[in-house]
Amino acid sequence: MKHAEVLMRLRAFMIVLIVFVSAGPVPAQGDPLASWNEGPVKKSLTDFVSRVTTVGGPEFVPLAERIAVFDNDGTLWAEQPIYFQLQFAFDRITALAPKHPEWKDTQPFKALIEEDKKAFLAGGEKALLEVMAVSHSGMTTEEFDATVKEWIATAKHPRFGRRYNEMVYQPMLELLAYLRANGFKPFIVSGGGVEFMRAWVEPVYGIPPEQVVGSVGKEKFELRDGRPVLVKLPAVDFVDDGQGKPVGIQKFIGRRPILAFGNSDGDHQMLQWTAAGSGARFMGLVHHTDAEREWAYDRASHIGKLDKALDEATAKEWSVVDMRRDWTRVFPFDK
Amino acid sequence: MKHAEVLMRLRAFMIVLIVFVSAGPVPAQGDPLASWNEGPVKKSLTDFVSRVTTVGGPEFVPLAERIAVFDNDGTLWAEQPIYFQLQFAFDRITALAPKHPEWKDTQPFKALIEEDKKAFLAGGEKALLEVMAVSHSGMTTEEFDATVKEWIATAKHPRFGRRYNEMVYQPMLELLAYLRANGFKPFIVSGGGVEFMRAWVEPVYGIPPEQVVGSVGKEKFELRDGRPVLVKLPAVDFVDDGQGKPVGIQKFIGRRPILAFGNSDGDHQMLQWTAAGSGARFMGLVHHTDAEREWAYDRASHIGKLDKALDEATAKEWSVVDMRRDWTRVFPFDK
Repeated sequence: MKHAEVLMRLRAFMIVLIVFVSAGPVPAQGDPLASWNEGPVKKSLTDFVSRVTTVGGPEFVPLAERIAVFDNDGTLWAEQPIYFQLQFAFDRITALAPKHPEWKDTQPFKALIEEDKKAFLAGGEKALLEVMAVSHSGMTTEEFDATVKEWIATAKHPRFGRRYNEMVYQPMLELLAYLRANGFKPFIVSGGGVEFMRAWVEPVYGIPPEQVVGSVGKEKFELRDGRPVLVKLPAVDFVDDGQGKPVGIQKFIGRRPILAFGNSDGDHQMLQWTAAGSGARFMGLVHHTDAEREWAYDRASHIGKLDKALDEATAKEWSVVDMRRDWTRVFPFDK
Repeated sequence: MKHAEVLMRLRAFMIVLIVFVSAGPVPAQGDPLASWNEGPVKKSLTDFVSRVTTVGGPEFVPLAERIAVFDNDGTLWAEQPIYFQLQFAFDRITALAPKHPEWKDTQPFKALIEEDKKAFLAGGEKALLEVMAVSHSGMTTEEFDATVKEWIATAKHPRFGRRYNEMVYQPMLELLAYLRANGFKPFIVSGGGVEFMRAWVEPVYGIPPEQVVGSVGKEKFELRDGRPVLVKLPAVDFVDDGQGKPVGIQKFIGRRPILAFGNSDGDHQMLQWTAAGSGARFMGLVHHTDAEREWAYDRASHIGKLDKALDEATAKEWSVVDMRRDWTRVFPFDK
């Protein structure tokens, strides 16, 4: 038998084995959820995974249907004091200012350049949308991707002095790995911009671009000197938030998740949509209760407001992470 | 060592092996492309796959980047005498007619019920859009999915008397399996409706819902007696055709394919977008040249018009399948 044939048969054999073995639960080798304190949330997670992966069990779920969805802002990485993508937009305006002398006398750019928070907030939503449009359009998709990659590699968080891609939650990284090891396919389903996320999430979360669902801007195909490009237009195509999340899941994934994790009312309908499927389900919320290691906020917060979803989680006994109680570490850089 | 631990280690070992082995080219065990005649197209396919899968080779492509995109109508399944999804829409109108006595006197429904082709065509695009809207909206996504599944299981093609999901191309089924065996992730990128396709493609092509990109209708999230549903609205959200295909690839996949296969000018920009990436590329067109076993049509056809893309394929030496010459079998049911 030729070497190539041996490889071929070896692989066929392994694929059969891996499909068989992958269907079974993965025991902890050490503890795959080491940054989770023993408690109801950790137990509900490991119980759920073992139920849906137990071959022949009453709640077994085939590999192809093990779809898990995660919000990003406030669920996988932090979102205070402002959404990190908004900070990116502000930084873009500052970086572009030298090329736009007219901004010195034009709001909302003037306010941003002069770091006049009061004047900027006076511009309200209109100012915000203008900043997002200017910072997220008028370039090709490749140019935008390069810009985000450069920002994420250099910009630092004001409170922690860490790069933004270090401001991710260690327990959630462990959960993503644990689910993957148990044959789950994790997707991000976030209100954030899909191209902003795709520029950096793969090395950080191990989630490939095709498993990132987010808000989308309109784009236009063009041939420039015979070379095709996609140009980002200053127009919103789809907002993946609130009621938009089940719509986005249906549009981009086309299969109902069996596990969903969020942290705010923007994730409420995604959790309801997940809960409404048949068979075993897991619905989780990250409750920000740790002002020392991270932040403490919920019902009254402008960012990541958690109110109605928290009430339904309590009523329906969804899993609510008490960050202070349930996580031994918050960020990977925590000791 | 506990049984579970043995499994755990065995799997870890296999994953390492499979990643290593999967990276290498798969030799034919028998011929994985048995329905392809020896010739330039088959050779260009196998050469391409061996170049991008040769570990350490100058054109090696990592597993995660082996994205392949396929048009559906006329590329994976037939599209004559009319797009099969349009036939589905016509059949829906006939099925719904008893509940709509008013249609007896309303065009374009009257024409369809009376099978008056001339009267229907007189309605032009407006009539077509109305039929698509009525047959593809006003129900939940679950109801629509069930309707398509029932139709695909029962409706028969007028010329071949076969179910529509039998009207797929055997050589393309072999190509999909061959690419998967070589670590490629195949996506459908079609002008067809994404939910129409997702209802039946997985068992036929082995392509899961989350790897199907298509045209999308607007949908609305609703709670009905506390149960969440998605309602299909009579409004187009995204048309995944022509210049829309690179936009759809960017929006839904977020990574440029290294292989693209189409059959019409609706696939032209998808092929250009694929060709414009760096490294090894494969661009293919199915040219319908076989009036006996299938159909023969190109530049003058109303359905699947192939004109500009054929010119560029010739100029750029993309691979063009001559169905009559290159395929020993067209449909799985061919002897």
